[in-house]
Amino acid sequence: MEREGTLFLKDLLALTGFEVSLNALPPEKEAPFIHKHRENEELYIVIKGHGQFQVDGQTFDIGEGSVIRVSPDGERAWRNNGTEPLCFIVIQSKANSMIKHLTDDGIRVKSEMVWPTSNEQALNK
Amino acid sequence: MEREGTLFLKDLLALTGFEVSLNALPPEKEAPFIHKHRENEELYIVIKGHGQFQVDGQTFDIGEGSVIRVSPDGERAWRNNGTEPLCFIVIQSKANSMIKHLTDDGIRVKSEMVWPTSNEQALNK
Repeated sequence: MEREGTLFLKDLLALTGFEVSLNALPPEKEAPFIHKHRENEELYIVIKGHGQFQVDGQTFDIGEGSVIRVSPDGERAWRNNGTEPLCFIVIQSKANSMIKHLTDDGIRVKSEMVWPTSNEQALNK
Repeated sequence: MEREGTLFLKDLLALTGFEVSLNALPPEKEAPFIHKHRENEELYIVIKGHGQFQVDGQTFDIGEGSVIRVSPDGERAWRNNGTEPLCFIVIQSKANSMIKHLTDDGIRVKSEMVWPTSNEQALNK
């Protein structure tokens, strides 16, 4: 996940409920501009590196494990002030779109898991 | 992000458009059961480790950088068959909920970014 730049997944994976991007920002680089959103909520998850994030002019440090939710109208930007790539994931989806089901959306299936062992995989070749 | 177990972010961060969990599964462990969903699409993003994933009985290897989208009715499970924790992020949101705005949801803001330098941070203390 360290290829420089941004990879959007929605079209690649035919996502229908949200957009996700994988990002690797080189040292000393920052977001191209401050932005906000019309309808979409965003979540930033930092995977590695060190940086700073700002929302509505308030700045704070971010690093591995940081998770930042931003409401649509939050004015946001970020920069890498570390020495390695700042790797982070951004998820966006329409705010208040998740109305009906949450953790109770999952349904347990009765089937048993069957995993191929190394031997079985070798036999299949 | 290597604390063993699953950390759900929706309630912690007051997310309104999707649920996200951070997961660290120890070696030789697997999902507690196969599950599917009523309405929600899921995306799995593998951060580190090695494992296997199965959907509707079809199994494939996963590792750092794997991204797996599963439709609501896909019967899914996973296991860690490596020697380190299998760390992955799961995003779920209502399928087909993202109708109106996608990348054009973002709005550029005219403000300029102002970042505190190390000196300024020291002066503020």
